[in-house]
Amino acid sequence: MARKMFKMRNTMRRRRALAAGLEAGAEALLVTHPADVRWLSGFTGSSGAVAMAKGKAALLTDGRYTSQAKAEVGGLRVVICKGSPGAFAAEWLAKQGVRRCGFDASVTSVAMLEGWKKALPGKLRRGFFVATSGLVARLREVKDADEIAAMRAAAAMGCALFDGALTMMEPGVPESNVAAGLEFAARMAGAEGMSFETIVASGPRSALPHGRATNAKLPRRGFVTLDFGVVLAGYCSDMTRTIHLGRPNQRKWDVYHSVLEAQQAGVAAVKPGVTCGEVDEAARSVLRKAKLEKWFLHSTGHGVGLEIHEGPRVAAKQVQKLSAGMVITIEPGVYLPGEFGVRIEDTVVVTDSGCEVLTAASPKVWIEL
Amino acid sequence: MARKMFKMRNTMRRRRALAAGLEAGAEALLVTHPADVRWLSGFTGSSGAVAMAKGKAALLTDGRYTSQAKAEVGGLRVVICKGSPGAFAAEWLAKQGVRRCGFDASVTSVAMLEGWKKALPGKLRRGFFVATSGLVARLREVKDADEIAAMRAAAAMGCALFDGALTMMEPGVPESNVAAGLEFAARMAGAEGMSFETIVASGPRSALPHGRATNAKLPRRGFVTLDFGVVLAGYCSDMTRTIHLGRPNQRKWDVYHSVLEAQQAGVAAVKPGVTCGEVDEAARSVLRKAKLEKWFLHSTGHGVGLEIHEGPRVAAKQVQKLSAGMVITIEPGVYLPGEFGVRIEDTVVVTDSGCEVLTAASPKVWIEL
Repeated sequence: MARKMFKMRNTMRRRRALAAGLEAGAEALLVTHPADVRWLSGFTGSSGAVAMAKGKAALLTDGRYTSQAKAEVGGLRVVICKGSPGAFAAEWLAKQGVRRCGFDASVTSVAMLEGWKKALPGKLRRGFFVATSGLVARLREVKDADEIAAMRAAAAMGCALFDGALTMMEPGVPESNVAAGLEFAARMAGAEGMSFETIVASGPRSALPHGRATNAKLPRRGFVTLDFGVVLAGYCSDMTRTIHLGRPNQRKWDVYHSVLEAQQAGVAAVKPGVTCGEVDEAARSVLRKAKLEKWFLHSTGHGVGLEIHEGPRVAAKQVQKLSAGMVITIEPGVYLPGEFGVRIEDTVVVTDSGCEVLTAASPKVWIEL
Repeated sequence: MARKMFKMRNTMRRRRALAAGLEAGAEALLVTHPADVRWLSGFTGSSGAVAMAKGKAALLTDGRYTSQAKAEVGGLRVVICKGSPGAFAAEWLAKQGVRRCGFDASVTSVAMLEGWKKALPGKLRRGFFVATSGLVARLREVKDADEIAAMRAAAAMGCALFDGALTMMEPGVPESNVAAGLEFAARMAGAEGMSFETIVASGPRSALPHGRATNAKLPRRGFVTLDFGVVLAGYCSDMTRTIHLGRPNQRKWDVYHSVLEAQQAGVAAVKPGVTCGEVDEAARSVLRKAKLEKWFLHSTGHGVGLEIHEGPRVAAKQVQKLSAGMVITIEPGVYLPGEFGVRIEDTVVVTDSGCEVLTAASPKVWIEL
């Protein structure tokens, strides 16, 4: 029964994608980006293509994935090819009578596109491929109830893991041990993997926005930023907490609370109809008033889902409006080079009236160990 | 001192890349693929571009990486940009008087290239970018002594981890626990991360060439394939062993030993001047004689280095010749759908007279637990 539901859901997704393609002037679509392929078909392999035109669709992959594709892809024709699934998909679509096929220019390399063209009969090559950008990715931005449930579960696991990680944080412990313990606990709890390279940035390293765990030892006095996520049923969680070892000085305390205030202002601004730029500004303006804006080196957040970085971009001046069902991060940070940094991040789902904080189980209050 | 050496080495690498660009008709190169950027500059961030022309070179990245870039990139100008480093790099090169700039078509999306063109003055756009393919990737195929030392260390860690994983393999243990234990031990041993999603494929799942660890429990009787790698100093290890729980039947024993023989034949064929196709055939022909070739669903191997999959491709009919310093995998497998599968993989470095098996510390004999 569940299988039938998934089959129907994927068929609907493909129809919506095709409708978006039609609007962009394409009568068919060739999709190869793994997250898009998975969303449209259920196939989780690393090398596959979904080819679709009105009333016709196929998943193309290579021989390594024969068993897996058949098990994962319900109600969709599976074609096993020798060589690039994309090139075979182009050929297959041409054989179905397609003459204008959309592809995603943002995830297709110049060389791939050339290869696909070569798979077509010579007279079809010109004008066959229509460049589109993020058609399927945009559909993926709004999550359905099943997807939100998956992301809620992933976020809850993240919060539990953070609680566990706190017990490992002591002066002298290498950052990489904290990452090791966290990732082990994630696997044992059933995570399929981590969403991205775990960040454990301690002491002056907390001033690196992307300080992945090294063998640096946690300091007696200083911040530790922990930014990590788990993958559950294909969906990513993402959260950041910054804690302090030992007594802080006033400056650290103040910066922490400015970032916290900015983060809360960002979360409070989230609701349908608000632009991403407005959410960014809600967080950014708090740091501006605190004269910390110049040390806030990145945007406020990003969409999350099957990929750790998806649309929408929650950045300055972005005019895209939020819709219910979008899942985004709110993660302002302040980084003082050579001194310290603070970042606080929640993942939230946009609801009809505001948002639900998926990572609410981990409080954002000052934690001093 | 070491820092000065790295600086000089990276300068030499950039010169060689530029020389390859010149041969391809470009007076400059714009490189954005992270592994290429790291190899040319030392920068390990996820968003960066190396721009180079005769006597001029710069690393471009965004504000998140200011501290990191300055720490990592010796002797190379660092330019911090707002927005896409690639687009800024194009603009920067044009300002240096460049009129024909090579880019890598195999790793540059159609949309990225469009964005780069837009960053140029209108009259320069036509003909500015020259498509090349894998110029830097090909230089990276042959490793220098430092790189081989790093890969030897990564492979040795892999072998030690495999020994540890054996102690976890018991009927009833979920595959994911084996992965969890292995990855924890990797972190504690100092690995920066895993080369790819750890594969633990047990019982009938061993017939999936890419069976990542699930909650399936190890069987009382059956194969378990373990395929994993660690990252150390940026370099990937890669190895596969297949072990058996309980007593096998004759068929399993025979298939295992056919794969082992094929793998050994592949390794024995490796030496400078031999084509990749010949190495593939050395392994493949053993399985052909054993009437198992149709179940060998992939190529014999691939290059490894900063990326888990690099050139050269060790596949049927590949005419590329091996050179001393190349590091490749030899990993034939046989997959009987619904029944079982066996894969055995070593990573080897091509030497002047043959090859050195980097993963030799883990014997490939039949292991029955």
